Amino acid sequence: MSDVRSGKVAIIMGSESDRKVAEDAVRVLEEHRVTYEVQVISAHRNPVILEEYIKKSDADVFIAIAGLSAALPGAIASRTKKPVIGVPINVKLDGLDAVLSMMQMPSGIPVATVGIDNGKNAAYLALRILGKV
Amino acid sequence: MSDVRSGKVAIIMGSESDRKVAEDAVRVLEEHRVTYEVQVISAHRNPVILEEYIKKSDADVFIAIAGLSAALPGAIASRTKKPVIGVPINVKLDGLDAVLSMMQMPSGIPVATVGIDNGKNAAYLALRILGKV
Amino acid sequence: MSDVRSGKVAIIMGSESDRKVAEDAVRVLEEHRVTYEVQVISAHRNPVILEEYIKKSDADVFIAIAGLSAALPGAIASRTKKPVIGVPINVKLDGLDAVLSMMQMPSGIPVATVGIDNGKNAAYLALRILGKV
Amino acid sequence: MSDVRSGKVAIIMGSESDRKVAEDAVRVLEEHRVTYEVQVISAHRNPVILEEYIKKSDADVFIAIAGLSAALPGAIASRTKKPVIGVPINVKLDGLDAVLSMMQMPSGIPVATVGIDNGKNAAYLALRILGKV
Amino acid sequence: MSDVRSGKVAIIMGSESDRKVAEDAVRVLEEHRVTYEVQVISAHRNPVILEEYIKKSDADVFIAIAGLSAALPGAIASRTKKPVIGVPINVKLDGLDAVLSMMQMPSGIPVATVGIDNGKNAAYLALRILGKV
Amino acid sequence: MSDVRSGKVAIIMGSESDRKVAEDAVRVLEEHRVTYEVQVISAHRNPVILEEYIKKSDADVFIAIAGLSAALPGAIASRTKKPVIGVPINVKLDGLDAVLSMMQMPSGIPVATVGIDNGKNAAYLALRILGKV
Amino acid sequence: MSDVRSGKVAIIMGSESDRKVAEDAVRVLEEHRVTYEVQVISAHRNPVILEEYIKKSDADVFIAIAGLSAALPGAIASRTKKPVIGVPINVKLDGLDAVLSMMQMPSGIPVATVGIDNGKNAAYLALRILGKV
Amino acid sequence: MSDVRSGKVAIIMGSESDRKVAEDAVRVLEEHRVTYEVQVISAHRNPVILEEYIKKSDADVFIAIAGLSAALPGAIASRTKKPVIGVPINVKLDGLDAVLSMMQMPSGIPVATVGIDNGKNAAYLALRILGKV
Repeated sequence: MSDVRSGKVAIIMGSESDRKVAEDAVRVLEEHRVTYEVQVISAHRNPVILEEYIKKSDADVFIAIAGLSAALPGAIASRTKKPVIGVPINVKLDGLDAVLSMMQMPSGIPVATVGIDNGKNAAYLALRILGKV
Repeated sequence: MSDVRSGKVAIIMGSESDRKVAEDAVRVLEEHRVTYEVQVISAHRNPVILEEYIKKSDADVFIAIAGLSAALPGAIASRTKKPVIGVPINVKLDGLDAVLSMMQMPSGIPVATVGIDNGKNAAYLALRILGKV
Repeated sequence: MSDVRSGKVAIIMGSESDRKVAEDAVRVLEEHRVTYEVQVISAHRNPVILEEYIKKSDADVFIAIAGLSAALPGAIASRTKKPVIGVPINVKLDGLDAVLSMMQMPSGIPVATVGIDNGKNAAYLALRILGKV
Repeated sequence: MSDVRSGKVAIIMGSESDRKVAEDAVRVLEEHRVTYEVQVISAHRNPVILEEYIKKSDADVFIAIAGLSAALPGAIASRTKKPVIGVPINVKLDGLDAVLSMMQMPSGIPVATVGIDNGKNAAYLALRILGKV
Repeated sequence: MSDVRSGKVAIIMGSESDRKVAEDAVRVLEEHRVTYEVQVISAHRNPVILEEYIKKSDADVFIAIAGLSAALPGAIASRTKKPVIGVPINVKLDGLDAVLSMMQMPSGIPVATVGIDNGKNAAYLALRILGKV
Repeated sequence: MSDVRSGKVAIIMGSESDRKVAEDAVRVLEEHRVTYEVQVISAHRNPVILEEYIKKSDADVFIAIAGLSAALPGAIASRTKKPVIGVPINVKLDGLDAVLSMMQMPSGIPVATVGIDNGKNAAYLALRILGKV
Repeated sequence: MSDVRSGKVAIIMGSESDRKVAEDAVRVLEEHRVTYEVQVISAHRNPVILEEYIKKSDADVFIAIAGLSAALPGAIASRTKKPVIGVPINVKLDGLDAVLSMMQMPSGIPVATVGIDNGKNAAYLALRILGKV
Repeated sequence: MSDVRSGKVAIIMGSESDRKVAEDAVRVLEEHRVTYEVQVISAHRNPVILEEYIKKSDADVFIAIAGLSAALPGAIASRTKKPVIGVPINVKLDGLDAVLSMMQMPSGIPVATVGIDNGKNAAYLALRILGKV
């Protein structure tokens, strides 16, 4: 699937407040010279923009960063066949709401959930998927 | 507030396995002679069908019944201006995953969450919204 | 469904310390030119005042804001036929006590629970119920 | 306060389904020859009946048994100066909703919460309060 | 049992760090002119001192304040026939460890658990038990 | 400390209902030819018997098995200098109450907590402590 | 990385009791004609066998299925550069122990956690990673 | 097993950030003149170093300090026959992730889990195991 030269990661934050975690992911990707793109698109507030972005995207892996009712990675996974990695953010309840919203997906639409606020591990998982480690 | 003749409720289940809870809601609506429609549409598996259904619907209130990463009511609420009621279903974790997935919505896209497996209360809340009690 | 001129929201806080969340709701209602009234009435400390207030109120929607054993929205819902929206406040246990106290109502007396500390979404839900969005 | 001969316990269940736990309490009270009375009154469905019952009651201690959003003991405690014991019932969430609804009362309106489904301990606590052990 | 003049409350903290919550209780008791005594005795570190204190005490009600594995109220309740009120303190896990350690007592040895860090309600419950309100 | 010939384990259950888990521990100890003794003594109902048993015991390791407000291992640990292993039993709340009651001991009085209902691991830990594996 | 013909999945269960969930994954892989291998290797009981298996494996993706202290996917991820998918199994605590043991990995060693008992989604995620959907 | 003069404790932290808790343990060991050694070795990042360290170690007791997916004590316990004490660290989720990762070990590989962040109790438990108290 992924050629070392073409592997590309699309990072989507649900909110501007998730920026710091996105930057943790970006740093890891840059260290490994992986192409990436960062967007802020809310699954709930911008569903149409999200759909269009996914449809046009040539990313090989998606990283979705979101807190609370974190529907973002699931919404992406239901519109692409690429692997989708979810990073639950601690906004309330120590992040448990985001963990469960991401992880407990119905069969057929998987989200690869990593640890709470752990943007780095989302990037490291993307690297493994792209064969870049 | 609402006219007795025009109030209509759209009940959407995320999965066929939520049928029993939908029927609890239906019984309450029928007792109060409220028009309703019941559908099974998964937010994750049938996102396009869901969007089309919402776009064409003339419902005054939506009731969304879902378990696990229960994105259904939020997905509806982001595509309509009508009130959306969410019923979290206990599939795993005593239903806590569905509760948090529904309730912790971002500002601007509210979901009116009722108790776990409590289809009746979704209907009773719809009746109050429609002014039918 | 609801007439633009008559829709009115009654906001009741269980404690003066919930003021900030009430103001979040107020700002949203004001932006949409909805009539509202704000009170501090504890369901536990002022049960008689609460009953009288509800009996005399001409509100179309109630918003109840409370923490801990958050009985306020349920107490209102058992004394009116209007829709009651509950906002759980994080005082202890990340607000989980208030969430469960509000959401798990017995059948027949529903509370429309929104996210923890999310006064804005209570107002946005009221707007949808009043047909003001 | 309580004379050995006059000590009386009022047991109130929120729902007929709490009967078994009420009977556990009754058995302990009968073994210790304590006068008691058992009622089914929902705080949410029968608020007026509850108020009247409390107003007329000559009980020295109240035992309130309830599940879910267990507002019953708090509603009693806000209308009497007698000690109120709460027994949280496991209906959903292993009874954690009822525990928190009962225990986390605002200052001034205490509920003496005992263990989940533990009607016996409610009775044993009543006996201690009445000086009957 | 308790005469209005003789009602006496023994407040026992598991640790010096619980002092602030004990003072909340003390203030309420002083306002109502109730005799009290305050001690710091750990159930785990000073079991013998605790037993001797309970044996010699003429208190009508015990208030036990403790965090973590809060065995203190249960240890008191197993050595006296007087009512024992437990105040769970938030040291770790938002106080949930102390709540469960206090509340889930075996049948026969009840602890009247009040809210997390809520020393005031322990005192108000003691006042009700002593018939001082 | 422990000689291969003299290592002895005292197993104490808080309730007869913990017997099955005690037998799991016993089987492991018998397979490794370790001397043991099994008792049912409740920390809350039989505090004096418990103290006397501990005082007279020549056990090198204690295994305490208990559910709910599982004070047993802590009560033992506060009366002996020997290592005390706690096995939390699932009676309510999936055993989380017993886990926290055992594990969150104050500094100076440690309990070695093993997994929920895992009597085998209590025995295996005892074997390691006694140098018998 | 993955050619449609060479993509291979190694499924490792921590215990024979996880077999049913492994079979759910297997069925999905077979439907998509993906090569796979199924093993039962406990991270805790067979650490040496696990290391050797990983070292010799030519799998492109690992699926690790485990309950309780579910160290298996993390142990694999620390010994390979391939993506590792974890399926938490509900043995105790509704599977929350396994969820947290898998998901909360330190930075650098990611595990792609899917839903509780959801072997199918582990397979569907593997298919996405292998580009087979 | 352990002679009063030769008892030795190996303290292993999963991360440099656990240093403070390790020092709490060290202070207790020094007060009791117990020989000890402190290392920082991550089970996930340095599995080979960990194995070699355990293989060469002459420690009588291991103390493993770790947060998040706290696999460290289990990894040690699966490679030594000595008793292993685990100290769960609060990094996320109030430390509940580390508690469950440590405590819920499979039968045969026990970890003696002490309280969250409680390095002192790990040392006190080691002292009891070594017969040094």
